[in-house]
Amino acid sequence: MREVYIVGIGITSFGRLEYPLVEIASYPSVVALQDAGLDTVDHLFVANMGGGRINHQTALSSAVLDHLSLWPAGSETIENGPASGSSAVKLGFQAIASGMCETVLVAGAERMSEVNQLDATDFVATLTHPMAEQIYGITLPALAGMFTRLYMEKYGVTRRHLAMVAVKNHGNAMDNFFAHVHTRVTLEGILDDRDAETNNPVIADPLHFFDMCPVSDGGAAVVLASKEVAKKLGKPMIRIAGVGQATDTHAVHERPDPTELTAVRLAAKRAFEMAKIEPKDVNVAELHDAFTILEIAESEEVGFFKKGEGHLALERGETQLTGKIPINPSGGLKAKGHPVGATGVAQVHEIVLQLRGQAEKRQVKDPKIGFTCNFGGFGNNVVCTVIKKEE
Amino acid sequence: MREVYIVGIGITSFGRLEYPLVEIASYPSVVALQDAGLDTVDHLFVANMGGGRINHQTALSSAVLDHLSLWPAGSETIENGPASGSSAVKLGFQAIASGMCETVLVAGAERMSEVNQLDATDFVATLTHPMAEQIYGITLPALAGMFTRLYMEKYGVTRRHLAMVAVKNHGNAMDNFFAHVHTRVTLEGILDDRDAETNNPVIADPLHFFDMCPVSDGGAAVVLASKEVAKKLGKPMIRIAGVGQATDTHAVHERPDPTELTAVRLAAKRAFEMAKIEPKDVNVAELHDAFTILEIAESEEVGFFKKGEGHLALERGETQLTGKIPINPSGGLKAKGHPVGATGVAQVHEIVLQLRGQAEKRQVKDPKIGFTCNFGGFGNNVVCTVIKKEE
Repeated sequence: MREVYIVGIGITSFGRLEYPLVEIASYPSVVALQDAGLDTVDHLFVANMGGGRINHQTALSSAVLDHLSLWPAGSETIENGPASGSSAVKLGFQAIASGMCETVLVAGAERMSEVNQLDATDFVATLTHPMAEQIYGITLPALAGMFTRLYMEKYGVTRRHLAMVAVKNHGNAMDNFFAHVHTRVTLEGILDDRDAETNNPVIADPLHFFDMCPVSDGGAAVVLASKEVAKKLGKPMIRIAGVGQATDTHAVHERPDPTELTAVRLAAKRAFEMAKIEPKDVNVAELHDAFTILEIAESEEVGFFKKGEGHLALERGETQLTGKIPINPSGGLKAKGHPVGATGVAQVHEIVLQLRGQAEKRQVKDPKIGFTCNFGGFGNNVVCTVIKKEE
Repeated sequence: MREVYIVGIGITSFGRLEYPLVEIASYPSVVALQDAGLDTVDHLFVANMGGGRINHQTALSSAVLDHLSLWPAGSETIENGPASGSSAVKLGFQAIASGMCETVLVAGAERMSEVNQLDATDFVATLTHPMAEQIYGITLPALAGMFTRLYMEKYGVTRRHLAMVAVKNHGNAMDNFFAHVHTRVTLEGILDDRDAETNNPVIADPLHFFDMCPVSDGGAAVVLASKEVAKKLGKPMIRIAGVGQATDTHAVHERPDPTELTAVRLAAKRAFEMAKIEPKDVNVAELHDAFTILEIAESEEVGFFKKGEGHLALERGETQLTGKIPINPSGGLKAKGHPVGATGVAQVHEIVLQLRGQAEKRQVKDPKIGFTCNFGGFGNNVVCTVIKKEE
């Protein structure tokens, strides 16, 4: 299999963006192409989930490709729910690994603010099981609430642990210019229930407002290249060393034990095996903390900590920037934001920044190997990536 | 590059289907898996354009994968407008060619009848240029009408030639059980304008009702495999010998000459070069006749006939089942139907049937090489495929 390198990266600010969806995908693409030193590519993948549903825009990849004047390169729009971004990076990897392309641009973008909060929640709920979940009105926050309750009962996770995730990730986001939320929060503030209805209301018990990622617009892009092209471009040699994907039952209630995120475990295992490394070799990770509990659960399933002990490692500070395995230096979905289709690409963007040593105040010390976990559905389609800096 | 074979095919009836979108994608998948003799695959791609917009269904590929109990295989939904199907087949090809997978299921599906005709037209129009076309109310039939008028003026194509495409393809569809339309039409009937308002009204001048494909529901699937697996399965060795893709300006009016379908020409050229054959070597082709004019124009751009002479070859009967290069033996989009995401997969399905010699009454005599052209947007993103039977 041919080796594939990441030679360019770009990102928009996450938050509320007053630009059309096509622009949100195009801007980080231009930045990534400039970063790579390329003015064209062989192919474009655009990761997006809501164009058709909320932006009256299909064939998004063709529109972006045209906006970037990349004809006659081919393109496709890739959708895998909240894991669309990592799926698109994976397909870019395969396009080059197969020998069909030398260079591929992968952009991810979402424009959620075109609809109100309720419609945004309905839009995201379209990824649930159509016959077993959707028709009963389930939403993603509801699923996460039930998951959290089970996790608390089984492993002794408390609201305090959940708040620790928020405090850490909001703190990291303070040093990320592109993050959606720049609000430093404290454990005391989050856990103070005196004005909870105003400051931190219950959204889906036991999850409060500060356990949820925001609804964001945003875009991110990476340029991939074959080894031959990457060497010529003279950028740091950062390689996609492993890609793993796995699925689980679409309906959460069909899982023998709903607290087990089997697809996360298997996707990570496959990525590590392909990269020929172990979880302990990872120096920096971006996990999919759409809800605070997910960072804890994923940190266990991917193998950083034993099952049921993620919250203890968190308590010990092991996932801080200076910890054993820093998680979500970017601020994560929780504070950087979660423009659905962009998220997986943005995770890779952060890892490349970290491996290049360009993450400024949130730089992890001298990382060699990075890892991303992008969580589709409620854990029904997960993509993990291992990214390695070559000396 | 590893070689990739088509080892299983399946299709639904096209037309109005009273099943959910997930079922429409799943049924032909089961048929294709049975045909291949497989009960699982390494990966699933689902081609679909309207799930989010018209069926309240995103993450379609995860839902289909779950319905087929294919966990923990990964999956993505692929969208490239009306060329989504061929794009998904191409990505299946790359997944195997890269060495990441041994077997891939590619399903295409659309459920258009969930919305009325007007909303279906609006849905398809979401693929036009958002700033330069969509906001002015352009639709695909309108673009096709203007294209047809230019073609008539430039090359002497008449309404009679357009009608010949319809008569041929409706005739072929009479022998295709799965076709949407089983209505034999005649030149005299189509060109008789006495009761045109009732029988064959103008839709987008000069295009009449019988120049348009119907709005269809439907699904199709193919199973791809590496050479090693294909040999074990013992099916006829039918190989994807070439895949070509190319894009053009998104807004049609930006093309120097709007009668030139540059992306079709280039996509075909790339596919032929990869397969190391020439257009004259093709024995049977499925072209994208969403409008009658497109079959004529594409037959020229892909290289079967000289530019401006497709209608003359049609007149001479060269594209009939018994002609020099039979086009659309399945009935084409015109009469087989056009469930958008399924179309490209269904084109490949027909070519495989023909190469296997299983097309019954519409069987072309002993074909060795087949070709498909799947036309995204109004020619802004085109995918062509060369499929070869190995002895």
